[in-house]
Amino acid sequence: MKDSLYHRIALTFEEQIRSGTLKKGQKMPSLRLVHKEHGVSLNTVLQAYYELEAKGLIVSRPKSGYYVSFSLPGLSIPSVSQPVWQCPSESVESLISRVYASLNAEGITRFSLGVPDNQLLPIARLNKAMLEAMRNLKGSGTEYEDIQGNRKLREAVARMTYAWNGKLTGEDIVTTSGTMGALSFAFQSVVEKGDTVAVESPVYFGILQLARSLGLQVIELPTHPLTGIDPDALRRVLPQIDACILVGNFNNPLGSCMPDEHKREIVHMLSERGIPLIEDDIYGDLYFGSSRPRPCKYYDTENLVLWCGSVSKTLAPGYRVGWIAPGKYKDSVIHQKLIHTVSTTTLTQEAVAGFLEKGRYEHHLRKLRNELHANSLHFSRAIEAYFPEGTRISRPQGGFMMWVELPRVDTTELYDQAIRRNISIAPGRMFSLQNQFVNCMRLSFGQRWSDEVEDRLQLLGKVAKNLMS
Amino acid sequence: MKDSLYHRIALTFEEQIRSGTLKKGQKMPSLRLVHKEHGVSLNTVLQAYYELEAKGLIVSRPKSGYYVSFSLPGLSIPSVSQPVWQCPSESVESLISRVYASLNAEGITRFSLGVPDNQLLPIARLNKAMLEAMRNLKGSGTEYEDIQGNRKLREAVARMTYAWNGKLTGEDIVTTSGTMGALSFAFQSVVEKGDTVAVESPVYFGILQLARSLGLQVIELPTHPLTGIDPDALRRVLPQIDACILVGNFNNPLGSCMPDEHKREIVHMLSERGIPLIEDDIYGDLYFGSSRPRPCKYYDTENLVLWCGSVSKTLAPGYRVGWIAPGKYKDSVIHQKLIHTVSTTTLTQEAVAGFLEKGRYEHHLRKLRNELHANSLHFSRAIEAYFPEGTRISRPQGGFMMWVELPRVDTTELYDQAIRRNISIAPGRMFSLQNQFVNCMRLSFGQRWSDEVEDRLQLLGKVAKNLMS
Repeated sequence: MKDSLYHRIALTFEEQIRSGTLKKGQKMPSLRLVHKEHGVSLNTVLQAYYELEAKGLIVSRPKSGYYVSFSLPGLSIPSVSQPVWQCPSESVESLISRVYASLNAEGITRFSLGVPDNQLLPIARLNKAMLEAMRNLKGSGTEYEDIQGNRKLREAVARMTYAWNGKLTGEDIVTTSGTMGALSFAFQSVVEKGDTVAVESPVYFGILQLARSLGLQVIELPTHPLTGIDPDALRRVLPQIDACILVGNFNNPLGSCMPDEHKREIVHMLSERGIPLIEDDIYGDLYFGSSRPRPCKYYDTENLVLWCGSVSKTLAPGYRVGWIAPGKYKDSVIHQKLIHTVSTTTLTQEAVAGFLEKGRYEHHLRKLRNELHANSLHFSRAIEAYFPEGTRISRPQGGFMMWVELPRVDTTELYDQAIRRNISIAPGRMFSLQNQFVNCMRLSFGQRWSDEVEDRLQLLGKVAKNLMS
Repeated sequence: MKDSLYHRIALTFEEQIRSGTLKKGQKMPSLRLVHKEHGVSLNTVLQAYYELEAKGLIVSRPKSGYYVSFSLPGLSIPSVSQPVWQCPSESVESLISRVYASLNAEGITRFSLGVPDNQLLPIARLNKAMLEAMRNLKGSGTEYEDIQGNRKLREAVARMTYAWNGKLTGEDIVTTSGTMGALSFAFQSVVEKGDTVAVESPVYFGILQLARSLGLQVIELPTHPLTGIDPDALRRVLPQIDACILVGNFNNPLGSCMPDEHKREIVHMLSERGIPLIEDDIYGDLYFGSSRPRPCKYYDTENLVLWCGSVSKTLAPGYRVGWIAPGKYKDSVIHQKLIHTVSTTTLTQEAVAGFLEKGRYEHHLRKLRNELHANSLHFSRAIEAYFPEGTRISRPQGGFMMWVELPRVDTTELYDQAIRRNISIAPGRMFSLQNQFVNCMRLSFGQRWSDEVEDRLQLLGKVAKNLMS
């Protein structure tokens, strides 16, 4: 997957701005200079600068040129998690229910939402793909599809893995009802009641709820806000665990991304003991860098990684289209799918298959990534400007989740105060069974940036400051 | 739900023909006589006679009148099941896989299919409902829906239960991915690994597979081909069981229907011990009689019946639209749904809701019931004519499944022979974990009757006869 020339040039400058090599207020190299040095057309340089401007990294001053307008927030990153071992707090479930219930009320600013706003989705094109699906399918989609799933979709998903040298074929993939369906079948294929699984911490609460409901023991491991789970911590619990589940790329809620060497190391140590790894790679395609990060599946020589994905965070949550490449657990996953749901919805799978086949998906992803990246910078700046002194934030390198650590503020209390002002956030306690992250929250930046969004963040910061005093 | 006048008159005569009161060759009462005796218009009588003619029960002889052309097949009904207690035969799973795999080959006559042929489905109207759904829904169905499910659909399903005085509201109902999704959540809400459930015998293999996969013990109980499970047999195992699951209306594979008094008795005996009843009522709307049979849910005063249904057997299997009224287990079922799939497909639920709301469903069901009823008679006649002497068949009073018991023929062998001639059947062994029903099979009559279908049944009978000699 080659990115366009101008985009790569823009990324080079962005790196320099983000690392502080190019400082706020400094003049950018002239268009002509870049044109000469990079051997590209003036127009390409101009496009690159437009992109940087759109992200709020540089500004144009008439008759003078472009200037760096952005400096990294001075905020520190949140602490590395150090899960403590307490009795699970029962009220976590009720907190989650409360946050969920608030999402559908009218006029709410949904910083707690786990999906991108539908303003960012290519709805007209999806509708076209749906009409094509109704025309193409026998019986217009009223028939059951193959239990393993729509063949076109499986093959299109396999082709997408070429971006990270995935070497998967349509035969390796089973379609599911979203990534949650994939995780459910994965769990039920590799562990049973009483078994123990290792997870990141903080961790997406859906994973915790699923594990609890299946009667599993959960070990939450220290996780770095930039590089993800600590491999040494995982190594220490290997003798105790029956499976591991990771959201390695742009983890929800941290936005962290595991370095390649960590991925290789972790797959290796798990394989040595024959421990399966369930990999939730739902955010992997939403990278802000120059290429898609590899999943752990890339390092999987023993077929022990169950790689899960979907279009729920990128295209159409309500379509319920996801997939899993279950490695050696393929027969079991297909059996789970058969007995729990027979098959997945015929029409939405065919529509997504058509959308993927025609290259519309890659086109859409490019736009979506740019917008989300710009949003992440807008959010960082606003939080720096409006939130209490001492606030720490993560540095998402993809996806649309940001982890915010506040000084001396109980975010459950903040939730209660904010929801009265029609702002919904996801309090940190939702992301652990150990009653921790009391002063943290997850903010979603998957909505179009606007003055109104900025105003809402400002108000949220004000509420937090009031709670402190 | 009032049936039309002519239909009720037709049913009266049909009863007389089926019971032998009106015998084959006998002249039917004249139109004028019926007009006088029933106090209805001549036109209504004529419509009733047309219906009887369409079902192959009477024929018109020019200038003479109508004559009874049908006599009940002389075949006996199959034996009441007497499950024996043997080690489960492992090869049942592989037999099921083989039968499934054969279904998608080209040119197969699918007497083993578990859904109605799409020739019998209102596809153009469904497509229209789908377009309306895309227009009505926020984000054209890309958004997650409410976890409990589409409100319009839940309310429409609740209104349908008025037909049997159901008194359910939309709040009592949770939507699911087909009935199988409903059964899966039901099981996971009321039993856990090691528990014991009682089922009919023979029983739909999907229920057996689900129970096994969840680590449940299964007790298969004697079941009558006309009246369903034996209440006394159930009473004897009450101390051993943690739940009961029944397909009381037009059971798959028998086509049996439990009498109201059995339903009342069974709900009562289970309630006394606080044992939940999972009721799979997927065929209930496909009755051949004058009104919809009540489900066990009707007798449920303690909220212990989890009533499951869908449109998979009547409208659109591939839409994956089902529902459950889980009684006191509602919170648990919603939680199961949340953690295993988040939500069901937004678009197909809205499309079905629209279809149900506008009364199109009842109109379609009326046609479908008439066609399936006629099919059941065509199949009975053809089996009587072409199958080996000593063959027994059930008398489906609804649905589209028929249970056939052959003398001295191993139906697994018959399957192997028949599939070479492009005919697929469902061997009896699929419907038990006890390696029984070796000489039985399920035939589906959910396809349009034609000379070709008759030819295929004739060929199947010939293959069976050859196997006997």
